[in-house]
This record gives sequence, structure tokens and C-alpha cells, in this order.
Amino acid sequence: MNVAPKPAFVLRQRHLLGIEGLSREEIVGLLDLAGEFVDLNRRVEKKTTSLRGRTQINLFFEASTRTQASFELAGKRLGADVMNMSVASSSIRKGETLMDTAITLNAMHPDILVVRHNASGAVKLLADKVDCSVVNAGDGAHEHPTQALLDALTIRRNKGRIEGLTVAICGDITHSRVARSNFLLLNAMDARVRVIAPSTLLPPGIERFGVEVYRDMREGLKDADIVMMLRLQRERMNGSFIPSSTEYFAYYGLDEKKLAYAKPDALVMHPGPMNRGVEINSTVADGARSLIREQVEMGVAVRMAILEALSRNLPNA
Amino acid sequence: MNVAPKPAFVLRQRHLLGIEGLSREEIVGLLDLAGEFVDLNRRVEKKTTSLRGRTQINLFFEASTRTQASFELAGKRLGADVMNMSVASSSIRKGETLMDTAITLNAMHPDILVVRHNASGAVKLLADKVDCSVVNAGDGAHEHPTQALLDALTIRRNKGRIEGLTVAICGDITHSRVARSNFLLLNAMDARVRVIAPSTLLPPGIERFGVEVYRDMREGLKDADIVMMLRLQRERMNGSFIPSSTEYFAYYGLDEKKLAYAKPDALVMHPGPMNRGVEINSTVADGARSLIREQVEMGVAVRMAILEALSRNLPNA
Amino acid sequence: MNVAPKPAFVLRQRHLLGIEGLSREEIVGLLDLAGEFVDLNRRVEKKTTSLRGRTQINLFFEASTRTQASFELAGKRLGADVMNMSVASSSIRKGETLMDTAITLNAMHPDILVVRHNASGAVKLLADKVDCSVVNAGDGAHEHPTQALLDALTIRRNKGRIEGLTVAICGDITHSRVARSNFLLLNAMDARVRVIAPSTLLPPGIERFGVEVYRDMREGLKDADIVMMLRLQRERMNGSFIPSSTEYFAYYGLDEKKLAYAKPDALVMHPGPMNRGVEINSTVADGARSLIREQVEMGVAVRMAILEALSRNLPNA
Repeated sequence: MNVAPKPAFVLRQRHLLGIEGLSREEIVGLLDLAGEFVDLNRRVEKKTTSLRGRTQINLFFEASTRTQASFELAGKRLGADVMNMSVASSSIRKGETLMDTAITLNAMHPDILVVRHNASGAVKLLADKVDCSVVNAGDGAHEHPTQALLDALTIRRNKGRIEGLTVAICGDITHSRVARSNFLLLNAMDARVRVIAPSTLLPPGIERFGVEVYRDMREGLKDADIVMMLRLQRERMNGSFIPSSTEYFAYYGLDEKKLAYAKPDALVMHPGPMNRGVEINSTVADGARSLIREQVEMGVAVRMAILEALSRNLPNA
Repeated sequence: MNVAPKPAFVLRQRHLLGIEGLSREEIVGLLDLAGEFVDLNRRVEKKTTSLRGRTQINLFFEASTRTQASFELAGKRLGADVMNMSVASSSIRKGETLMDTAITLNAMHPDILVVRHNASGAVKLLADKVDCSVVNAGDGAHEHPTQALLDALTIRRNKGRIEGLTVAICGDITHSRVARSNFLLLNAMDARVRVIAPSTLLPPGIERFGVEVYRDMREGLKDADIVMMLRLQRERMNGSFIPSSTEYFAYYGLDEKKLAYAKPDALVMHPGPMNRGVEINSTVADGARSLIREQVEMGVAVRMAILEALSRNLPNA
Repeated sequence: MNVAPKPAFVLRQRHLLGIEGLSREEIVGLLDLAGEFVDLNRRVEKKTTSLRGRTQINLFFEASTRTQASFELAGKRLGADVMNMSVASSSIRKGETLMDTAITLNAMHPDILVVRHNASGAVKLLADKVDCSVVNAGDGAHEHPTQALLDALTIRRNKGRIEGLTVAICGDITHSRVARSNFLLLNAMDARVRVIAPSTLLPPGIERFGVEVYRDMREGLKDADIVMMLRLQRERMNGSFIPSSTEYFAYYGLDEKKLAYAKPDALVMHPGPMNRGVEINSTVADGARSLIREQVEMGVAVRMAILEALSRNLPNA
């Protein structure tokens, strides 16, 4: 079964390094294409041949269950040969630099490199050195564009639109590439974006992203259509202020009481993995207004759309 | 090459969580189907297309060379897209629960989840949360149904039947899911099951499984058709009595002298990996009466049969 | 797309354990076949079906980014089902021996086992126990035949021949299986082979390999057509003399000044991963005379040729 969208959507760029640089038309094009893959993934035979004979390498310098799995399934369902490469089993320990790894893999003629790295900007550096397409699967606190796209697809499917919605992004903004990519995408799509966080988890100058800043959940959630909770990333808080779970939950954790501040039909999102009882409780996470499972489902579809769109750009394609 | 058994055997259940719950007819059906895959695996082109476009995820919370490899090859030879996920590279370390992992993977629309976990019952818990088929690849000291099925197939091929045979299962019964699944299967097939072990490696109430209990190899092996040795699982003996290898071998290790207590045509089995010189010596393990290599071969065939049978059950199949 | 070379080249042996035992005709045959795969790998659809339905297992007892990746892509592009197995996730920790691992995997009917091991000779031991073809992906300080073949292919493509060239292999000869395999191959192809190294990194009796020994870069590089630098393998220098990077680079590290001792059209090689600033500097490694990236590219092609040639030897093929 070959999914052939008409007219064939093409990304004008070779890489997907961030939401920054994507036009509104490109975002819409990717979401539309992803919609077709949502249907494919629900079939018994969830397979196309559009990437047959192409090589996709998932190069993860940082472990990630869901993102790597999502990209791996996306590539395999498109018919690509997919190879995973993680830091643990890599030559990095033998003293090889990030750039030598990139150059080495590039010489093996991959068509697409999916890269996650703990340093902001590392994926761009790598992309400049290779001939293939590079997809940013998360770089430091910089961008995580496929997450923002899957969030957007989830919102659009449930609210019918993104334009004009009020989206409240709550929690650990400082360490969140998810937040950053969502700011860019939601603004490009003319949503109204708020952040709600304690000062210690808000990076300086956050307003330049065109977001309204709140420090109180009650105020920030008022009239929100979408409540997007972020994971409290303790593992990134080296030496800085680390709140206790109980205290954090009391002020910024989403429960039914705080959710009641938002619109009656507000929906709840979380990029996962969740710290249950810290930034969100299970009643809300597993409740009828939660889109969290659907976000994961949309993740595979969005990544298929990106791989497919980028592959149409390849030199000899 | 498409292996199409006639009439097509179908499992009446969505999951394979244990031998418990399988009827004698289902066991025979699985063994018959597996027999066809034995032939396929001996060909140069060992490949069917019956699981083409299906997604199989091997979710291993406990490392295992042979079981994971066996399931991976089984799935790939059936044409499935197979993805491995191990604890080491998972989000469990980020505080995600077993259930969130299950729910997340489920949202990616796998068709089959093959799960190994160190806690008895964890696979069942997980199976209740997902829409796909789940195969238990070993959960704690509970069940390891594919091992019992491959053991049964090996016995049937070499003895022509299972019914009426005397099977002596020797060694570390307490920590053995292999033993438990074999008790259930062998009893369902009307074999006579004995266990031979020191009191310290026998769980209380073992008789309720319908087995005869022996503490002495000479008595227990008398008239045995099959001698099934178990691995001494020192790594599971936290703080409890741990026998020395030399002493254990003297009393319960299988050598030619002890094997002579069994029937002259008795055959030897071991689920692997073996502790040579502890529960079995190399003369016996590598001897003419050993079925140990054939067990591994049957393992791939049995797992292909299970994957194939479960896949025929899928909603839209 | 099926690459069908005419006349079909066949290796006369079941395994590729080393360059030792390969005739000059076999080396040339492998290089010719690899040349066809170079072209295939540069296409968008880089895929053949010649190993469809075959099972390739990469069994790595020692981590290696580039070699494992190269073999994995080679097998996948030939259409094989490829399974990776690394020590970390293996049963070795449960006390299973190398031989039991081999016998176990063999019972799963792989067609090709690609094996890397830290002990010289371990791959041969394993090959004697299995029914399938075994490819040595590096065993201790013994051989790394695919590296020597890819080096030869790289040289031949850039110099038009191997015969009569002067190849200087510089650095840590003692710990280098790459050096050993290159000695054998280059001598078989009638190149003139030199080694340049400090006494502490030269194994005793190196002359029996038919190489000229130099301790000084200026003398050793004189009239060299190819300058092949080796990685300083500090991780293998247990307790022995470990030179400082600065000092080592001063005497044996390749920079533009030392490269000027060689022929004006001399080309530079390195098997990777490089210690930049230790055995080679970046100006040379990334310069116009460096073949290092091309070596990686040739690696995939050479491994495809080996897998293809060995698979033509399979019993029922």
C-alpha cells in the first residue's frame, strides 16, 4: 500500500532542525500529510514502500524510549532500512569527536540521520557536515520540533483548529526544548501562548518568544483551551534550585481542582514521560480530558510525514 | 514463500501469558504449526510474508540473549517489523512506570508485544492495559510458556509422543518459571512429571502441581524417559542458602553415572544457559543423548507458530 | 535491483577469518565485486534482494561503532534479516561460555555470523563449531580482514593499482590487527610494505611479515605512495609504556611537515576512530590528500561483497 498524497507536499529545506524556519504553509502541509499516516497506522498492514532502499540512522547521544521508538517505527513502516546507534555502544568513548562520528556515518550514505544530543546546537553543527537530511530529535534545551508538530496535530484533531486557541504551557520552562518548539509553532499558527511557572524555572527574556507569563496556575489557566504540562527535569538541575515533589505539586501540579480554572472543555497534554504526582496526578493524566495517549500515536504519524517529506527532497528522488 | 497450514490453526485467546489456560488441543495445534516452521528455518530462504506490515515489539525488562534473539528472528522471518526495547535504554530510569511504558508503546499500534519482566504477574498486568497481543517471554518465577512449548516440541519429535512419558525435572525448582510452565504443559499432555531437588530449592506446596517429589537423583531418575536439568539461578538467591558448585554437582549435577539411573534411551534437556560443571557436565551436555541444541532450534519455530497464531486473531486480520 | 556480476565470483572457503589463506585472485575478485556495490550505495534506492530470507547475526564481544554499523548496513542493503547481539546484553554474564553462545546461535540457523572478539583466535574457535559462514570483524591483535580489504579497495581506486606501491604503516603496530591484515594483503598484492614505529610499539619478529622496519618518520616516509596511520590504542596498553600524546605526536604524529617526506602525491589513510592531535592532526586528516572518508565508504561496499560472495557458497544456494 503506497500512500500517495496529492498534490505531493515537499519541504523546501533539506533538514528539519527546528520549528524556526518553517513557514505556516509547511507546518500545515506536514500536519495534513501526517493525517494520512494516522489512518495507515491503524490498519493491520501498516506499511508503505515509499522509503524502500533508503537508510535511516537514529543517532542518539541521549537515551530516549519513546522518541527513538517512534522514529524507528516510523522509518520501518515507510519501508526504510533503520539502524539505531546509541552513545553507549559508540566510539565516543574511544575519543572520537561528534564531528568524526557524523563524517563517518555520512560516508556510509545514509539518507536520513535522526539525531538527539544533550547540547543545544549540536544537531545543527552535525547537519552542516553531512550530505543527507538531518532531523532534530531534541538538542539540549533548544528545540524538539517533532514534539511540537505532534502536539499541534493532536490539538487540531481535537479542537478542529489551532488558530485563536489559548494554550497554557506549565512547569519547567527553563530546561524544556518542548516548550521552545511549541512557542514557535503555536505563534506561527496564531494561537495565544501562555507560560505558567515559578521564577526559578523561567529562563530570563522568555517574553521575546511572544508568550504571556504567569506565576500562578489559577490566573494562567483562566480561559485556557489547552493545558500542556511539562516534565520536571530534575536530572538537568545541576546544583540549581530543586523543588520537592510535594511542594511542587501543591503549587504547579495539575489536579482536577486546578484544571477547573481552565475552560470547561479544556484538554490536557504532556510530552511524557510523566512524573505522576509531581507535575500531574493520575486522575487528570488518565482522565477523559487527557490527550496524552493520542500524542504518542500522533508522534509516529508526524515522524512518518517528516521522513516522507524530506525523502522527496533527496537529490535523485 | 508463504507457509499456509490447512486447516488454519487459531488460538482462541488474544494473549499467550502462560500454559495455564491453554487447552490440550491448543497445545497440539501450536506444536503442529511449529513443525512447519522447523522446515522453513532449515531452508536458505527462511522467510514468509504472513506478518508483513505488522509491528512486533520485544520489551525486555530483564536481559536475555537467547530468548530475545529467538523472538527477534521469529518475527523477522515472518516478515514483521521487529523493534527491541530493553530496560537499559528505556525511560524507566526517568521515573516512568511499567504501566506508562505499556500505554505509550500501545499508542504506537504494535500488533504484538513480547514481554519479559523480573516480577511474576507483571506481564499480565501489562496485557490488561493494551490493545495488542502480548506474549509472555518469562515473568519472575511465574511462567515461561514458550520454553515449555519448545520443550514439548523437542520431546515429541524425539519420542514420537508426550503422553505417558516420565519426565524428571531436576534442580532449582524454586526460582524456575521454566519448571512451572512445564508442569502445566506436561500434565495437560498426560505425561508423568517428577521433580528432583534438595529441600532448599523446592517451593512449599509443589505437590499441588501434580508432580511427584524426589530428593535423591537415583530414585527420581528411575524409569525416566526425559531428564530435564534446570539452571542453578544463583543470581536470584538473595540472602538465602547458596550451595557451592562442587557440592551441588556431587548430589544434583547430571553426569554419565547419574544418567545411567534413567531409562537406557532417556534423553537430556536443559533450557540454557548452562552452568557447566554445576548442574550438568560437558560429557552429558554435548553427548549423543543431549537434546539441548535441538531445544534452541525448536525455540525459533515455536515462537514463529505463536506469533503466527496470535496474528490470525487480530481485529482486522 | 539485483546486482548480478558476471562471471559470478565465489570464495572457495566457507569463512572469512583472515587475509591469511586468501589467494591473490580471491582478493581481486572481492575488490571487483565491492566496486559494483560502491555504485549501488550511491543510489537513492540502495537495495538488492540477493540475501533475502538469509539471517545475519552480528555478534560483538567488543563494542565498535563503525564496524558494526558497516556490517549492519551491508547486510540490510543486501536484503538479509540482520540481528545485532552485543556482550552487554548477552548471557555471558550468566556464565555461558563463548562456545555455548556459538552453539546456541548456530541452532537458530543463521547463514552468516559476523564476530568481533577481544581475544586473538576466538573467531576461528567459534567458526569451527558452527554450520554457517563466519566473518572475522576483528579478533584481538590477530586479524581484521575486512579493514585490509577496504583499505586495498581505497588504494586501488585512487592509485589505479596496488602492485609496486610503497605503503608506510605508522604507529602502534603491536596492538594492531589492522596492521597485520594489511601486511598480508599488501604483500599478496606485491606492494612494498614499511612499518614506522618506536621500539615499544613494535612486536618482536615483525620482519617475518615481509616488512621493512623504520623508527624514524623522515626515513620511513621517503618515497611512500600511501601513508597509513594507526590509532594509538591506549586502552590495550595495560601496565606497559604509555607515551604522552604531545611527545608521541612530536615524533610519530602525522602533520604536513612529516607528510612532506613522502612522495608529492602520497595519500593518507587511517582506519578510525582517530585520536586527533595524537597520531594525526586535523589539517592532514581533513586535507585534500586524505582518503579517510572514502575508506569508510569502501567499508560498506567491501562488506557487502564479502557477505554476497560467502552467501553464494551456502549449501542450498
